Amino acid sequence: MPAPLLSRRDLEFMLYEVFEVESSLTRERYSDHNRETIDAAIDVAQAIAENYFLPIRQKVDTNQPTFDGEKVQMIPEIKVAIDAVIEAGLASPGADYELGGMQLPALATAATGAYLNAAGSTTMGYIGLTNANANLIDAHGTQEQKDKWVQPQRSGRFAGTMAMSEPGAGSSLSDLTTTAIPQQDGTYRISGNKIWISGGDHELTENIVHLVLARVKGAVKGVKGISLFIVPKFMVNDDGSLGERNDVTLAGLFHKMGGRGQTSTALNFGEKEGAVGYLVGEENRGLMYMFHMMNEARIMVGSGAAIIALAGYQYSLDYAKERPQGRLPSAKDPLAPPVNIIEHADVKRMLLAQKAYSEGAYALCLFGTMLADDEHTAHTEEERAAAHELLDFLTPIIKSWPSEYGPKANSMAIQVLGGAGYVNEHPVEMMYRDNRLNPIHEGTTGIQSLDLLARKVPQNGLAGYTACLNAIGDTIAEARASAEVSEAAEQLSAAVDTLKQVTEFLLGSMAEKDIDLVLANSVKYLDLFGNVVIAWMWLKQGIVACRGLAADPHEEDANFYRGKLQAMQYFSRYDLPEIETWAALLMKLDGTCKDMQNNWF
Amino acid sequence: MPAPLLSRRDLEFMLYEVFEVESSLTRERYSDHNRETIDAAIDVAQAIAENYFLPIRQKVDTNQPTFDGEKVQMIPEIKVAIDAVIEAGLASPGADYELGGMQLPALATAATGAYLNAAGSTTMGYIGLTNANANLIDAHGTQEQKDKWVQPQRSGRFAGTMAMSEPGAGSSLSDLTTTAIPQQDGTYRISGNKIWISGGDHELTENIVHLVLARVKGAVKGVKGISLFIVPKFMVNDDGSLGERNDVTLAGLFHKMGGRGQTSTALNFGEKEGAVGYLVGEENRGLMYMFHMMNEARIMVGSGAAIIALAGYQYSLDYAKERPQGRLPSAKDPLAPPVNIIEHADVKRMLLAQKAYSEGAYALCLFGTMLADDEHTAHTEEERAAAHELLDFLTPIIKSWPSEYGPKANSMAIQVLGGAGYVNEHPVEMMYRDNRLNPIHEGTTGIQSLDLLARKVPQNGLAGYTACLNAIGDTIAEARASAEVSEAAEQLSAAVDTLKQVTEFLLGSMAEKDIDLVLANSVKYLDLFGNVVIAWMWLKQGIVACRGLAADPHEEDANFYRGKLQAMQYFSRYDLPEIETWAALLMKLDGTCKDMQNNWF
Repeated sequence: MPAPLLSRRDLEFMLYEVFEVESSLTRERYSDHNRETIDAAIDVAQAIAENYFLPIRQKVDTNQPTFDGEKVQMIPEIKVAIDAVIEAGLASPGADYELGGMQLPALATAATGAYLNAAGSTTMGYIGLTNANANLIDAHGTQEQKDKWVQPQRSGRFAGTMAMSEPGAGSSLSDLTTTAIPQQDGTYRISGNKIWISGGDHELTENIVHLVLARVKGAVKGVKGISLFIVPKFMVNDDGSLGERNDVTLAGLFHKMGGRGQTSTALNFGEKEGAVGYLVGEENRGLMYMFHMMNEARIMVGSGAAIIALAGYQYSLDYAKERPQGRLPSAKDPLAPPVNIIEHADVKRMLLAQKAYSEGAYALCLFGTMLADDEHTAHTEEERAAAHELLDFLTPIIKSWPSEYGPKANSMAIQVLGGAGYVNEHPVEMMYRDNRLNPIHEGTTGIQSLDLLARKVPQNGLAGYTACLNAIGDTIAEARASAEVSEAAEQLSAAVDTLKQVTEFLLGSMAEKDIDLVLANSVKYLDLFGNVVIAWMWLKQGIVACRGLAADPHEEDANFYRGKLQAMQYFSRYDLPEIETWAALLMKLDGTCKDMQNNWF
Repeated sequence: MPAPLLSRRDLEFMLYEVFEVESSLTRERYSDHNRETIDAAIDVAQAIAENYFLPIRQKVDTNQPTFDGEKVQMIPEIKVAIDAVIEAGLASPGADYELGGMQLPALATAATGAYLNAAGSTTMGYIGLTNANANLIDAHGTQEQKDKWVQPQRSGRFAGTMAMSEPGAGSSLSDLTTTAIPQQDGTYRISGNKIWISGGDHELTENIVHLVLARVKGAVKGVKGISLFIVPKFMVNDDGSLGERNDVTLAGLFHKMGGRGQTSTALNFGEKEGAVGYLVGEENRGLMYMFHMMNEARIMVGSGAAIIALAGYQYSLDYAKERPQGRLPSAKDPLAPPVNIIEHADVKRMLLAQKAYSEGAYALCLFGTMLADDEHTAHTEEERAAAHELLDFLTPIIKSWPSEYGPKANSMAIQVLGGAGYVNEHPVEMMYRDNRLNPIHEGTTGIQSLDLLARKVPQNGLAGYTACLNAIGDTIAEARASAEVSEAAEQLSAAVDTLKQVTEFLLGSMAEKDIDLVLANSVKYLDLFGNVVIAWMWLKQGIVACRGLAADPHEEDANFYRGKLQAMQYFSRYDLPEIETWAALLMKLDGTCKDMQNNWF
C-alpha cells in the first residue's frame, strides 16, 4: 500500500476540533453546509489526488516543459488532472454559487487543497494563479472585464498569471520599468520584459490572461507610478471568441530546481507595436491592488510549504515503519534480527521534529485561513475587524515560518530514508527541491522580517501586536487548567515575556538609534516571533488533545492525542528555547553583520 | 568575469599561515618541495578546474548518465576532464614517486583537490573512488594484486569502486548477505546484489575493479564473518590484457538529486556461474580493511561538503557585489538609485554565515588532513601516535559538521540570489543538491553521533577526548594574550566547560542508566561538540589574523584579516550559543524522542 498523502485524522482534528469549522456554519453564506458536505468535498479531493496526481507525480517532475520555438510542450496528463479538478468543482470551491463555486468555508476549501497540493503542488500552481488572477479582476475590474476575463478563467477556458518581476526589479518592484502608453480607444500599449512568470506560457488553455504591472508613460517614479493591466495572450472578441495573437512572446523557460511541472517564463511584451493592455481600476494604484492579493498569496505560500512538509513526514513515517535496519544500543545479541528503523531514537527524533514543524506550521496556516474567512463572513463588524487586524499582523509569520521550517522537515524526511531518500524512486528529494522556492517568492524571508518589525509591529499603535499577544495569553490561561500542558504553557509564557522585552527594546531603539542597526537582525526577530507563534499553535493543539483524552476516546484516538502532546513537548523543549540566543543578539543591537565591510569578505 | 571558484587568498592563509605546511617540508618525504612547488601544483589544479571542469559544470548536471541496455552513456567531456587531471599528475599527487605521485604534503594535495572539486566534484568522484580502491589494495593486497589491479588504476586505465551496501544492508553492514564460495584454484565465486555503487559501471576506463564485501560460505554471522574481494568487470590476463567479461552486470542506474555526473548503480554479482573474486588479505577481516579506508573516506566527505559550501559562498558573494536591488531602511529618498545587495544587513548576514560555516568547516577538514599526514610522516613516534589519537577522535565531527552546515550554507547562497538562485542559470541550486548527499553516505550523521559518544569519547580511557580538550585549551591560552580575540576565547572557554559538564554527566549515566536513553540525544551531543570544535578552528584563525594585522600588512591583506575576525565573531555570537539549548536537553536525559511510541505518530 502506498504511503498516505496526508493524515486524514490530523486534517479532521484541525478542522473540527482545533478550529471548529462547524461553528462557522451558522453564517448565512454557509447555511447549506454541514460536516457531511465538507467531508464529501474532502473525499473527492483525496480521490482526485490519489487517482490523477499521485500516479503522475514523478513523471511531472522528470519531464519539464520545453519550448520548441512555437509552443510549450508538456506531458498531456497535466491537463487531464487539471480538468478533473475543475470538473469536480474544486478549482475554487469557496467561490460564490453564481461564480460556479460551492461556498465552502475557507477551512474546508483549504482541506481539499491540502490533498491536491500534497500530490500535485506543481500542477495545482496553474489553478492557484488562475484563481488569484480572477479574484483580483473580480475585486477591482469593471463588469465588462469580469465578463470577458473572469468567467472563462472560472470555467477553465483561460488561465491567468501575475506578471510583476523584471530583470532589474524583483524584490524591489518600485524600480520596474515596463511602460504603458495610453491609446485613443482607452486601451494601452505595453512594452517591457518580465521574468519568473509562472504559467506564463503553455497550451493547457485557449488563452492566458496576464495581469501586468507597468508605468503609464509620464507617471511618477517609485511605487506611486505603477498601474495594473490585463494583457491577454490572444485578443478576445466581443462574443468571447479568440482574436489575433497579442504582442506577447515567450522569451524562454527557466529550469527550476523544483516545481518543475509549472512553466516559469521570461515574457517580452511589445516587441513589435506594443501589447494591448486594459487598465484595471485607476492609474497608479496598481501596486495597491496587487498587494491586496499578495496577502492571500503569502498565506498560500505558507500553506504550500506546510503541506509539502506534511507529505514528506507521512512518507518518511511510512518508510520508517517498514524498513528493518540495525539494532538498538541496548541489544545484547548483535545477531538478533534487525528492528524497523522507527525504533531508533534518532529516527524518532527526525519524525517527531517533522511532525512538530509540519503540523505546527499547518495549524498556523489554517488559523490564518480561518481569520481570512472571518474577516469577510463573521457575524459582527467587530469580529470582522478583529480578524483582519490579527491576520494582517500574522501574515509575515504565516508566510515565512512554514517556508523556513518546511524545507528543514523535508531534509529530515530524506535523512530518514538515507540513500533511498536521495534518489527519485522516492518523492522526498523532489519535495525538498519543490519546497526550497517558498522562502523566496512572494517576498523573501528577509523582506517578511522587515515587514514584521518595521511595519506590522508598530502600526496602528501596536494594535495587531497587542491583539496577537492577547490571543496567546488567552490560550496560556486556558492551558494552565490542564496538568498535561502546563509545562508547555509556562515555557510559552516565559517565551512571550522574552518577546515583549525584546520588542519594547527594539521599538525604543528605533526612535533613538541608527535604524539600519536596529533592523540589522530583523530576521532573528522574525525567527523569535515565529517560534513563539508556533509554540502557541502547539499549545492550542495540546489543549484540544487533553480534552480529547479526557473524553475517554477509543484507543486509536487516544494514541493520536498522545502523539499531539508529545510533538508539543518536542517543540517546547527542542526548538522554542533557541529564542534565547536570538533575543540576546537583539537586546545587544549586535552589529556583527551590519559592521561587516564589503572588502573584508 | 566569472565568479572565482574559491578564494585563493583564503586557501593560502589556511595552508601557509594557519596550518603551516612549510613546517612539514623538513620531513625527508617532502624534501623536494617548497612553497614554489606547492603553489605551482595549485596553479595547475586551478587551471584545469577553470578550463576543463567549469565549462562543463552545468552540462554534467543536466545530462545524467543513461543505460542503453548495453552500455552506460555519458557526455564525452567527462573523460576529457578526467584525463587532464591524470595527465597533470593530480589524480593522486600525494602518492609515492614510484607510484607516479609527486609526494606532495597532504595539505597541498588537499588544496589541489579543492579547486578540482569546487568545479567538478561529481566527475572527481570517479578519481577519488579509484584512489581509495588502489590505496586499499596497496595496504592489504599481495604484490601480485598490486601489480595487476593497482598500477592500471594509478595510470587511469582502470577505475575502482567500493561495493558495500545491499538492499537489506546499508547502515548496518553486519547484515550483508552477498556470498563467496571458495574454488580449488584459490579464487572465489561471488553472488549477491549491491546497491548505491558509485561509478559501478561506465565506459570511462577499460576496466572497473570492484572491492566487494561478502561472506565466505559458512562464515559466522555478523561483522566477524565479512571478507573483502577484488571482483573485476573484465578478467585480466597475466600479461595485463583484458580477458572475458566477469559475471557482474548492471541492474540499473539510480537517479540522484545531485552529483548527477557520477553513476550510482545497482550491480548483480553472479547471476550465472558466480563472479570471479580474489580475496584481499585474510578471510573474515574484510570489514576491518574497509574501515581503515573509511576514516579516510569520512574526511573526504567532510572536505567535499566544505568545498561545495566554499564555492557557493564565493559565487553568492560575487553576485551580491554586482546585483543592484532595493535601498537601505535609512534611505530618505525612495527614488535614490538602488544599492548593491551586499549593502543590506541581512545579505551580509547570509554571506557572513556562509563564510563562518564554510571556512570554519574547511579549516577543520584541513586540520584533519594535516593530522592524517602527521600520523604517517611526523618525525617522532610520539608525534605520530598523538596525531593518530586526535584524528581518530575527531573523525565523526570532521565527517558530519561540514556535511550538516555545508547544505545550510548552500541554502543561504540560493537565498542571496533569490529567484535567480532557484534556476540552473546559476550553479548554487546544483550545489545545494550535490551537498545534500554528504550527511548520508559513509555513515549518516546519526551513526557518527553514536560513534562519537558511545565509542570515541570513552575509548582508551578518554585519551582522544582528553587530547582534544587539551589542544583546545592550548589555543584558548594563546588567544587570551590578544585583545581582539579575547571575547571569542572566553566564549569558547565557557563552551568547553559546558561540554565537559555534559560529557561527564553522560559518561556517568552510561554506567548507571538505560543506555538507549543516554544515547537518545546523541546527535545533540555531536552538534554541541561540533560547534565547540568549529569555534576552536575560528579561534585558531583569529589568532593568526591578529598576528597578520600586527605585522603592518598592505591594505588588501588587512581587510582579509579583519574579515576573518568578523567571521569568528559571527560564529561565536550567532552559532556557538546554541549549544546551551542542546546541553540542557542532554543534562536532563530528555526522553521526549525515545518515549515517543510508534502508534502515537
